[in-house]
Amino acid sequence: MTSATQTSLSEYLAEQVTVVDGALDRCVPPESTQPSSIHRAMRYSLFAGGKRIRPILAITAAKAVSERTEGVANAAAALELVHTYSLIHDDLPALDNDDFRRGRPTCHKVFGDALAILAGDALLTLAFEVLSTLDVDAETRIQLVKELSQAAGTVGGMIGGQVQDIEGERQPPTAGLLDAIHRAKTGALLRASVRFGALYSAATESELAALTKYGEHLGLAFQIIDDVLDVEQSSDTLGKTAGKDQQQQKITFPAVYGLEKSRQMAMLERESAHEALEILGTRADRLRQIADFVVLRQA
Amino acid sequence: MTSATQTSLSEYLAEQVTVVDGALDRCVPPESTQPSSIHRAMRYSLFAGGKRIRPILAITAAKAVSERTEGVANAAAALELVHTYSLIHDDLPALDNDDFRRGRPTCHKVFGDALAILAGDALLTLAFEVLSTLDVDAETRIQLVKELSQAAGTVGGMIGGQVQDIEGERQPPTAGLLDAIHRAKTGALLRASVRFGALYSAATESELAALTKYGEHLGLAFQIIDDVLDVEQSSDTLGKTAGKDQQQQKITFPAVYGLEKSRQMAMLERESAHEALEILGTRADRLRQIADFVVLRQA
Repeated sequence: MTSATQTSLSEYLAEQVTVVDGALDRCVPPESTQPSSIHRAMRYSLFAGGKRIRPILAITAAKAVSERTEGVANAAAALELVHTYSLIHDDLPALDNDDFRRGRPTCHKVFGDALAILAGDALLTLAFEVLSTLDVDAETRIQLVKELSQAAGTVGGMIGGQVQDIEGERQPPTAGLLDAIHRAKTGALLRASVRFGALYSAATESELAALTKYGEHLGLAFQIIDDVLDVEQSSDTLGKTAGKDQQQQKITFPAVYGLEKSRQMAMLERESAHEALEILGTRADRLRQIADFVVLRQA
Repeated sequence: MTSATQTSLSEYLAEQVTVVDGALDRCVPPESTQPSSIHRAMRYSLFAGGKRIRPILAITAAKAVSERTEGVANAAAALELVHTYSLIHDDLPALDNDDFRRGRPTCHKVFGDALAILAGDALLTLAFEVLSTLDVDAETRIQLVKELSQAAGTVGGMIGGQVQDIEGERQPPTAGLLDAIHRAKTGALLRASVRFGALYSAATESELAALTKYGEHLGLAFQIIDDVLDVEQSSDTLGKTAGKDQQQQKITFPAVYGLEKSRQMAMLERESAHEALEILGTRADRLRQIADFVVLRQA
């Protein structure tokens, strides 16, 4: 394990992006596999320069509790498959109708709506196949399947949050609704990402509880900053259409609390994330750095 | 176990539909669970009078190899969740653009495209959650996750077949392409359904091999008859738009072989399905009756 002081966070993140991309490349069929169009569409969206925050959280959480982290990148890849499927479907004309993502035309703009729907379905399906074939005991694999399916589901999970988000467009922006939406829409998968690493590395109950708490605070900080950046930054910097939230009358942190209060809230979530890690000592230094990075990022 | 001679097939099927519907009702959140709109949409499509062929195949295959079949209906329910998700997405305007299914307006006609896309995603996700929480050992649960994810995936699985089917609309209808499409699009999930029962009941290697073969022949017979009925029957009888295949220039068995030859082929597949079951003796009588039913059905 590389000590947090030996390499900078940006070097560490760059290293881990390479590791995650390698795992993703191995688990998605090559473009030459028939029917090639669907594998092209899946790979187009998957290798579009994502920050790989979710898999990196999983890998880093695994490292915080165990030296045995071989193969965790394959488990972590499943998180990115699910995240990418959700982006493809969210961008569809029937949903957010976005033409750009990460600075490139969205999946449906390149491959058409039909193939984009199917590519999303395929990434979601593949995530569970990947988990089912991991090189760890069956009990751990099935725990990960349960964790991912619940985090991505309708009750407190990603799809549930997405539905509330769409329906929220016609409702007054209240703090309670905002909290519910974001805990589910982005929070659940970020929380699951941290828990993935802990479960994979057979964390103790108290380690799992600490990491879960960290994941919850980090997830909220992440979403607050995402909302803030949507207001403050240009489309060029974000690589996607900026100001979209306001235009769609989405319920966001700046809409409910204003920009300054939102930034303060993100800082408080960062502090809580740090506090949650106390029992892990210096083993969790990278996770602390990631919490800082999430709050201080500019895109 | 009820002997195949004690009750008629239609009585048996009706009984099993009740069992499957009960399992589905227990695994899908009630409409009162927030966000209720997505659960309404999921339930609308799920409880639309489907024949439950896939779960019934799983249950019946389990009964053919073991007396211990308690809880198999819950595993079988996952198959119906995946089948229903695929119908919802296939019916979308971007794909087959169907307004009616099982005699009722399709999901997107009632709930809109956005919610229909998310309801499909949610059913697929839920299928894996259901498998992860089955009351059997972790090894069996993870085998089922692998089986289902591969059967529903892009390489020889349902999504792969769907892609080939869409792309086939612009290609000359050849026997090879037809075979590849149907083995993947409908064959893979029907094959997996039979294997589900075998895996759940811890079938021996030779029992699993026999049931797999049966599932493959049955799947092909099922698809041939589906294509034939699309030509021969009215929309009223089918509960969906008839003649749609020809209109969309789909590659079908009647298009490649003509109606009479197609029916003959289905009868041959039925015979092969029967032959595959030989080692199971009378324990497989219900599976034989189901093969007959699939070929002789009128809708």
